[in-house]
Amino acid sequence: MTANIQLDDNGRLKHLLTLEGLSKPLILRILDQAAAFADATQGRDKKLGHLRGRTVINLFFEASTRTRTTFELAAQRLSADVLNLQVAASSTSKGETLFDTLKTLEAMQADMFVIRHDASGAAHFFAQHAAPGVAILNAGDGRHAHPTQGLLDMYTIRQAKGDFSKLTVAIVGDIVHSRVARSDIHALRTLGAREIRVVAPPTLVPAGIEQMGAKVFHSLDAGLDGADVVILLRLQKERMLGAFLPSLGEFHRDFGLTRARIRQLKPDAIIMHPGPINRGVEIEGDVAYGERSLILQQVSHGIAVRMAVMAMILAPEDAGRAKATKRRAA
Amino acid sequence: MTANIQLDDNGRLKHLLTLEGLSKPLILRILDQAAAFADATQGRDKKLGHLRGRTVINLFFEASTRTRTTFELAAQRLSADVLNLQVAASSTSKGETLFDTLKTLEAMQADMFVIRHDASGAAHFFAQHAAPGVAILNAGDGRHAHPTQGLLDMYTIRQAKGDFSKLTVAIVGDIVHSRVARSDIHALRTLGAREIRVVAPPTLVPAGIEQMGAKVFHSLDAGLDGADVVILLRLQKERMLGAFLPSLGEFHRDFGLTRARIRQLKPDAIIMHPGPINRGVEIEGDVAYGERSLILQQVSHGIAVRMAVMAMILAPEDAGRAKATKRRAA
Amino acid sequence: MTANIQLDDNGRLKHLLTLEGLSKPLILRILDQAAAFADATQGRDKKLGHLRGRTVINLFFEASTRTRTTFELAAQRLSADVLNLQVAASSTSKGETLFDTLKTLEAMQADMFVIRHDASGAAHFFAQHAAPGVAILNAGDGRHAHPTQGLLDMYTIRQAKGDFSKLTVAIVGDIVHSRVARSDIHALRTLGAREIRVVAPPTLVPAGIEQMGAKVFHSLDAGLDGADVVILLRLQKERMLGAFLPSLGEFHRDFGLTRARIRQLKPDAIIMHPGPINRGVEIEGDVAYGERSLILQQVSHGIAVRMAVMAMILAPEDAGRAKATKRRAA
Repeated sequence: MTANIQLDDNGRLKHLLTLEGLSKPLILRILDQAAAFADATQGRDKKLGHLRGRTVINLFFEASTRTRTTFELAAQRLSADVLNLQVAASSTSKGETLFDTLKTLEAMQADMFVIRHDASGAAHFFAQHAAPGVAILNAGDGRHAHPTQGLLDMYTIRQAKGDFSKLTVAIVGDIVHSRVARSDIHALRTLGAREIRVVAPPTLVPAGIEQMGAKVFHSLDAGLDGADVVILLRLQKERMLGAFLPSLGEFHRDFGLTRARIRQLKPDAIIMHPGPINRGVEIEGDVAYGERSLILQQVSHGIAVRMAVMAMILAPEDAGRAKATKRRAA
Repeated sequence: MTANIQLDDNGRLKHLLTLEGLSKPLILRILDQAAAFADATQGRDKKLGHLRGRTVINLFFEASTRTRTTFELAAQRLSADVLNLQVAASSTSKGETLFDTLKTLEAMQADMFVIRHDASGAAHFFAQHAAPGVAILNAGDGRHAHPTQGLLDMYTIRQAKGDFSKLTVAIVGDIVHSRVARSDIHALRTLGAREIRVVAPPTLVPAGIEQMGAKVFHSLDAGLDGADVVILLRLQKERMLGAFLPSLGEFHRDFGLTRARIRQLKPDAIIMHPGPINRGVEIEGDVAYGERSLILQQVSHGIAVRMAVMAMILAPEDAGRAKATKRRAA
Repeated sequence: MTANIQLDDNGRLKHLLTLEGLSKPLILRILDQAAAFADATQGRDKKLGHLRGRTVINLFFEASTRTRTTFELAAQRLSADVLNLQVAASSTSKGETLFDTLKTLEAMQADMFVIRHDASGAAHFFAQHAAPGVAILNAGDGRHAHPTQGLLDMYTIRQAKGDFSKLTVAIVGDIVHSRVARSDIHALRTLGAREIRVVAPPTLVPAGIEQMGAKVFHSLDAGLDGADVVILLRLQKERMLGAFLPSLGEFHRDFGLTRARIRQLKPDAIIMHPGPINRGVEIEGDVAYGERSLILQQVSHGIAVRMAVMAMILAPEDAGRAKATKRRAA
């Protein structure tokens, strides 16, 4: 799957499917735009007019209230008309049924689809078949990519730490099933992070991860040693037991971030997690809400980043790089 | 069930329950208004202000994401506040429960209800009991009527073919269960189509259909011969087998529109289908997306037609016949 | 649970959790504001701008289409962005999971949460943990409180009857499980109702209700004698049988409001019910829609009251006591 389909001839975003292949200047431009939107929505009135009269359809083949909600809020705050469609993946597993769904909704003059699907490549499939002018945002496809999560993570790291070139980033937990890990690794590499580590038991590390530029650690203590940023991943408890992990308790003991362990971190290290957290599994509750944790800031940044991507694709002339004019519904 | 309840003393629409009994000038006025809205929503900003501050409630007793979506988009684009209520029909089967539901939602100052129900006559029931000023749109009631589908079909035919008086229209498939077929036949007759054909195996043709003005064909080849317009109906696969059809394969062989069969059509014949299509049953996938097919255009027209009906009922002074002023939220 | 958490240092509402402890002037101010909104939304355009750019999240841990709908409409008519989240209570029964949910949604810059939960005290829990500036509206928590229902009941009584000090109010039915009864009793007492009666079989009267200021009647005839206002409660049929009631028929015979019984009422007595009614259980259908019934007006008043509370909390400077300026989206 190539990333070129995401860009138009002038190198501007027309879809967002993966962070793989996006240039450093483009990623930084998205983060700058997100910062401008974060700033513009600080006050009481969070409504901007960039997508007024446009239609954004959240097309979720996999249930995710939380992610859907952030996309819905992002679109609402840009004044788009938003439609939520939850589709049972079972009834649309065949490519031609996906195609029929896309074409039908396109005919309703949708401008953008936010797609979540449990099949890797689903967002690419939509982008390949979308009519000109119709944008596809990948909100997570299988184990492949979750690019807006990757961007909000980069936003959070940049805001807290500034220069990526000095950072050692440890990604901890279920790497093998994680689209978040893949998107983070692509972005961190592009942005020039000094060292990217994946920290997990052998069963949860995918083959070939070193080729993506990550160092593998099977010991949490070693993996955290000297880290500036710790990104924990959510453990999908249901699918873990048996095949991948002997027990949740053992995982917590060996890879959970506890109060004891954060004392070993660098004093200014930050802790992140895409949420929702499993208290007592990958993280202790006290740590999640402790002073080093940026988990809730990640949620806020997620809306700003999604607004940025939506506006840069659908209203590129309005979404100036550094400034979100408070253009109102007129 | 009389149609008069749909019109006020000046002959203007106050509900839309059925196309039966609507005059030719009124139908044409709706189509003209729809054309104006289709034109006004071509650009990036599809938002018009006709229903600003009005409340439209989609009250669906039968699940239909697709139809509900088109009504929701139509209302959104006219700036209405839209509320979606999905009600289990089982819990509201009794007339008095329907009545309680209507009265309660009316008391919330709803201006319009879009109703879908599996009982024929449900929309009439609501219209009979609605308070003055409250409008009912029938989005499909049992086997009875689906008037906005009928209107969008007429819109599509008129745009492609112009004058109805020269047209032979073949409606193919499960006529007996189809509210779409009934609404199409009423409209085609009113608009003066030269010949209306229903083409189906004997088990799928309702008694008395000739009295509605249709000619019955049990052979697809004969039914398509000389047709200008072919309207395929969706086969509800689940309820067909056994009682009505020996097998889906046999239906496809005898009544499915295949590449082979469209070669026998008149060169300028058009193909329509209310969707969603059953590939390999009533139509082949290649035919559905072929050059004669207007299936996706029907979807687009559906939004324009629904906007037209909503605006003509709730904002008749703004919804000028031929011109949709781009009145904005001010 | 104290009520103080609801008020800021100037005695203004910042949450609405219970009517217990609210002052008479504050309750009257809410009713006045509701009257202003009821007036301002009489015309065709029901849209006001008070909450433009604000985000209201309906967070329902207990299904209630009807209540959720009235909050959604109230927020829409004030131009808020509204998000509906239906959460299975089972998956969020633990306090720390509720806390995680609150904090995550807060991070999305929600301004107000409308909470319904089957656990008494859930709304207080949220208010205790909400960030400064985030408002909590209780839409019903267990058997504890349903303050907007209490307010709309007071609005309805005041509009029909004026001065509370002359009124005898009989609340009839399942008192023991009713948060509506509790909220009504608190408000009636604060507003100075002459006499508050609860009328129910002994199994449905909670211990200690007299300390709230209510007189207990186990005979409907005695309870209705001289009443100016009759508030019927909805019987949750499923949980009644066996433990609390021998049969629904017996309940209807002894405590149902029938045509025969309303003839014994004072000529100007009014009948109320929070809905949805159980015809033939607590009320006969004819009585529900009879001339003394204000049941549908209660629904309308519910929207005005909810608008009032939302605006007074989130836009106190705009929500003048007696006048709702038609401030539009600009």
